[in-house]
Amino acid sequence: MRRSPNPEQRRRTLCDAAIQLLADDGVKSATHLKVDRKAGLPDGTTSFYFRTSSALLRAVAERIAELDLKDLTAATRRTDPSSQPSGLATLVFRSVNGARLTRTKARNELALQSPRDPELAKALRRYTDDFTALIRDAVVRLQPEGADVDAALIDAQTYTVQMFIGGVMLACASGDRRFHTATELDSLISGIVRGVGEESSANFRDSL
Amino acid sequence: MRRSPNPEQRRRTLCDAAIQLLADDGVKSATHLKVDRKAGLPDGTTSFYFRTSSALLRAVAERIAELDLKDLTAATRRTDPSSQPSGLATLVFRSVNGARLTRTKARNELALQSPRDPELAKALRRYTDDFTALIRDAVVRLQPEGADVDAALIDAQTYTVQMFIGGVMLACASGDRRFHTATELDSLISGIVRGVGEESSANFRDSL
Repeated sequence: MRRSPNPEQRRRTLCDAAIQLLADDGVKSATHLKVDRKAGLPDGTTSFYFRTSSALLRAVAERIAELDLKDLTAATRRTDPSSQPSGLATLVFRSVNGARLTRTKARNELALQSPRDPELAKALRRYTDDFTALIRDAVVRLQPEGADVDAALIDAQTYTVQMFIGGVMLACASGDRRFHTATELDSLISGIVRGVGEESSANFRDSL
Repeated sequence: MRRSPNPEQRRRTLCDAAIQLLADDGVKSATHLKVDRKAGLPDGTTSFYFRTSSALLRAVAERIAELDLKDLTAATRRTDPSSQPSGLATLVFRSVNGARLTRTKARNELALQSPRDPELAKALRRYTDDFTALIRDAVVRLQPEGADVDAALIDAQTYTVQMFIGGVMLACASGDRRFHTATELDSLISGIVRGVGEESSANFRDSL
């Protein structure tokens, strides 16, 4: 007697095939039938596990978040402030290189799709929140020694770094990458935090 | 006798309908038939003007570039360094608000599609190059008075601001906007330029 496949393993296989399709050909190509064939499974398998297109995309978002979370945990462990490059820069650098670029491309596709699908948006947000927390930690560690911690400033710096990283991930997915090491990226991130901080103090002094 | 439609005008009408479809429902919805119906024109009109899906997307990219270029020209005219907010911040602020957000969403969709379609990538790049030049001008104007102009540094600052703006446009297209005025945006851009400059001099000093 043949063992029936483990449903969790089968779901992962289908989601991984969908990630590859999303990265290569975009949302319009991530159909149930194409996923079946990409995964080398009988026609109808994807429909059996994920009834709708939205259910499939949501499962893909959750699979991406699961994979991302492992990387994030590894990055968070590198919290030694003296480590160069930082865990954050290393994480971003890895996510736009090699096999992980596929996942980044798929994530971009889902992000663009998310305003049209609230459940998908929710699934994506779960990871985004963890990622934002990592950025905020990095920003806090980059404050000048002895400085008062200003929550509004930390917010502005976190936002600016986050938008920069979002832009980098989008550009790299289009083949436009202009840094060669995580250390270069780290220096740009430190520059953003330093400059937004100084600009904000300058504005504060101006407003006195 | 009915006058036959002006072909240029007709092409514009079809492209504008396609921009709306791209923004609302993504690349997968920008089919010839849906564009016909969105534009309120007989079935087959879009296929008559743009034979393939790629030809349609390329025409849309050119239409977006034509509209963007008007805004860019207006922004470039605001070159008075004392004008607050700068032309660049004003341009970005406008492109993520009101009716122009539709165009920004459509541009994001095309950008994600572009690695799969070299002709589309070429059409998009024409505008990107002009936009990069505007960013570079803004960066040059933000150099500290009397500083030596260092081309590699200007490149790094331009790149960082460009990635930040790309991230802002992507996030705003997903409904995530966290600034309320062009002046706030301007201050973040100035902060990036200042900080990347200082970080770079610090690294230079460290390497001595």
